[in-house]
Amino acid sequence: MSGAAPKAVVLTSGGLDSTTTLALARAQGYDCYALSFDYGQRHRVELQAAAQVAAALGALEHRFIRIDLGGIGGSALTDPSIAVPEQPSVGIPITYVPARNTIFLSLALGWAEVLGAQDIFIGVNAVDYSGYPDCRPAFITAFEQLADLATKAGVEGRHFHIHTPLIQLSKADIIREGVRLGVDYSRTVSCYQADEAGRACGRCDSCRLRRAGFEAAGIEDPTRYA
Amino acid sequence: MSGAAPKAVVLTSGGLDSTTTLALARAQGYDCYALSFDYGQRHRVELQAAAQVAAALGALEHRFIRIDLGGIGGSALTDPSIAVPEQPSVGIPITYVPARNTIFLSLALGWAEVLGAQDIFIGVNAVDYSGYPDCRPAFITAFEQLADLATKAGVEGRHFHIHTPLIQLSKADIIREGVRLGVDYSRTVSCYQADEAGRACGRCDSCRLRRAGFEAAGIEDPTRYA
Repeated sequence: MSGAAPKAVVLTSGGLDSTTTLALARAQGYDCYALSFDYGQRHRVELQAAAQVAAALGALEHRFIRIDLGGIGGSALTDPSIAVPEQPSVGIPITYVPARNTIFLSLALGWAEVLGAQDIFIGVNAVDYSGYPDCRPAFITAFEQLADLATKAGVEGRHFHIHTPLIQLSKADIIREGVRLGVDYSRTVSCYQADEAGRACGRCDSCRLRRAGFEAAGIEDPTRYA
Repeated sequence: MSGAAPKAVVLTSGGLDSTTTLALARAQGYDCYALSFDYGQRHRVELQAAAQVAAALGALEHRFIRIDLGGIGGSALTDPSIAVPEQPSVGIPITYVPARNTIFLSLALGWAEVLGAQDIFIGVNAVDYSGYPDCRPAFITAFEQLADLATKAGVEGRHFHIHTPLIQLSKADIIREGVRLGVDYSRTVSCYQADEAGRACGRCDSCRLRRAGFEAAGIEDPTRYA
């Protein structure tokens, strides 16, 4: 908790992946600054989950930024008139939020610059994932290159590093890693259409991936289903 | 005004540069979708100016997105406790907003994707400017590369183009170009600390650059000074 540790901004959604990422960043010795977005998502109960896990995992500070991505639309997660699919889809699904991780990383970059941090953690995964383009290694590499050019800190020689500790892990491996670090997954909410009490539907893409991950890991699923 | 023209998202702040950019995009035959940000800036009167110029220059639609960059801080433009400098400064000035153009372009990219547009216009300038890193050609090139990797549209083969028609123009040339296209610069607000009626201070960096531009262009300055 001292000022001697390096600072990191950790994108924290309240879901399984970002919570594990926060636990990993802490285990690596970073002073963590959690950042969450209220972007008009359906599953807003995840914001309460984010607050709980950030506190439980020792984030030094936790900020919420509001951005009205519903004003842009184009996704089942931000447009109430588009239903969340409950069957696997072909290609990139309608739950894709246009440019979401670019937007989130940009805001994380801005806060990192103000904090004097050069490390940003994001829990993207390119194995057991929904096929979103902005979860792939090539995207992350391109953002890292952009970050140094985009900022005063970068011009002055600070090199930003986007950490993606989960990017090549299976969901089962992510869960094993989190359990090893003491993460309480019952606090996390992954479901795209969780109810107000944070109970999961068990049918959307995100629920299916999560449930299969616990099964593959041989760990009892603590998710609260509706 | 028909659907046959290509669509472009144009970042529109209500200032001199972005207004000229919007006029240029229209002159190039694009159907323009203006995008403005309410980001907690001091000079909020620029948002009214943005609405006026977007309407006057025939934007088909104009959206405002709220993002609380004040929550990040670190700039005289978003933190009321930091004064706007009224003397030229050395290096990148305190009016620099961390990662601002990365954040704005990310949101423009999201809207472009939803609209089916592949063209984004931004009025950055690397000649008569304040030294902001995210106004330089290298930054724009890096963002363009990122955009194709970041989006579903990019994965599916759409190539995004970030247009920066002003990037190598002097302020005087920008003004001459706008006047040629019929821009009414009395509607635009560049001042970092304009009063509620939109009158400029005449002393901040932005005012100095603007006033010098009209002088160099030999065009009478229509700016309303307080």
